[in-house]
Amino acid sequence: MNVTKAVITSANPVDKHLPLQTLIDSKGETRTALQILLAEVFSAGLEAAAIVIPPGEEERYQLAAGPYAERLTFIEQKEALGYGHAVSLAAEFVGEAPFLLLVGDHLFRSLGETSCVQQIIALAKSENATISGVQPTHESQLHLYGTVAATLRAGTQHTYDVSSISEKPTPTLAEQELIVPGLRAGHYLCFFGMHVLPAKAIDHLLARLETTSPSEKIGLTETLNFLADNGEYLALRIDGQRFNLGERYGLLRAQLALSLAGPHRDEVMATIIELLA
Amino acid sequence: MNVTKAVITSANPVDKHLPLQTLIDSKGETRTALQILLAEVFSAGLEAAAIVIPPGEEERYQLAAGPYAERLTFIEQKEALGYGHAVSLAAEFVGEAPFLLLVGDHLFRSLGETSCVQQIIALAKSENATISGVQPTHESQLHLYGTVAATLRAGTQHTYDVSSISEKPTPTLAEQELIVPGLRAGHYLCFFGMHVLPAKAIDHLLARLETTSPSEKIGLTETLNFLADNGEYLALRIDGQRFNLGERYGLLRAQLALSLAGPHRDEVMATIIELLA
Repeated sequence: MNVTKAVITSANPVDKHLPLQTLIDSKGETRTALQILLAEVFSAGLEAAAIVIPPGEEERYQLAAGPYAERLTFIEQKEALGYGHAVSLAAEFVGEAPFLLLVGDHLFRSLGETSCVQQIIALAKSENATISGVQPTHESQLHLYGTVAATLRAGTQHTYDVSSISEKPTPTLAEQELIVPGLRAGHYLCFFGMHVLPAKAIDHLLARLETTSPSEKIGLTETLNFLADNGEYLALRIDGQRFNLGERYGLLRAQLALSLAGPHRDEVMATIIELLA
Repeated sequence: MNVTKAVITSANPVDKHLPLQTLIDSKGETRTALQILLAEVFSAGLEAAAIVIPPGEEERYQLAAGPYAERLTFIEQKEALGYGHAVSLAAEFVGEAPFLLLVGDHLFRSLGETSCVQQIIALAKSENATISGVQPTHESQLHLYGTVAATLRAGTQHTYDVSSISEKPTPTLAEQELIVPGLRAGHYLCFFGMHVLPAKAIDHLLARLETTSPSEKIGLTETLNFLADNGEYLALRIDGQRFNLGERYGLLRAQLALSLAGPHRDEVMATIIELLA
């Protein structure tokens, strides 16, 4: 299937400043985190992106989007009703097509020749399935991520068949239900921060919202499990790194990784050595 | 003399986003660069601060100032007419008193027990003089800084008598006119990013503006030389580091320095090692 639209969620009031932070990308260009993310989306061939933001932030985000602003649709999440609710607000933008879902407070760095978004979009082209990007993650980090129960698909190296999804599982639950054969001990397949979802994901979210009390928060996990139970659901082990800007020193870690991979590696190494001296 | 007011300039449209960036300070607290700077100002005993900003930025700066917002006076520089013009706009705020002048795109880290602002304020208490914080700086960096011609004051280790100021001198000019006895070869006394100025500095700026064509930019250097020619002008070698957030990787360098000096040093060291591996 062909994916042409991206939905980026950035509606969490605590982290709303993160996409607006300035970084130097791996080419040495000064850009906002939002621009770096959008560059990855559009260079992978996607045509349009919607970004779900808190109320009153559109102007700041437009400025932060720079040259990509005109290709963006801004959607305000007026109340903080959860991640699933934020995604559901993209119903009109998404229409009937599958879409790429990204979190606005993450950046990605490929370790291969194709970008992380390109990797998941390429798999989507050949598979009519829900796809979550995943990464083997140590059990000490499980409290931060959605985690899949999955088995490696025969004849592939990076593609897994997903049977269920657990939101931030405990290590005990993970050990009982989420062990993936072939991974290093103590490692699980956790979300990378990007998914390709069918439009029916939004239908399911909207249906859930109709039966939920108006102030209750709606997550995404229940809908992902619905998709796993009612169709093909794959996990793609992304050849890359994710940088969660919202974690402590997440911005520093992202900037260090980008700069150490870029044209100013020596300059940054010299700074590190000078400050450690 | 007693300094109770600070003027912070942040009106350069290119760098106006820098004070709004998020960093983790040396205590491990997540704060904007502006909050870190204001914490240093107010913890040194100053009572009020004015910040000169580009038009339309007051709300963003108020948000970025957090708990310090109510102690701030915002002054808009409606046209980008230079650093001297920006300082002159604080005339009403400053009144007749000496004031601390800081640049909004720098952060400072003391290497001793008293903060960098405390060091310059302490010298101002005992001297009725213009004072510029300075730091020995290699000649390769001269294009970035104002530089003083000065001699160490007898009986002191860090206080210099200033005879003149050159804005971003060439290495040739520096070698001819700005050598300071006692510094390492190839090093000059460059501005640290903080000054204590008498109110007559603003009178001088206003007088210059009256005789300048309306669209011409006004720097500060000519006024600093006026002060050196018409009164006592000291330079204080600050026991600390300045971080120019506007230089390439300036934010990264500041964050690394703050975090390596703070409670999460081991965590940041582990991140560096992981990314270099």
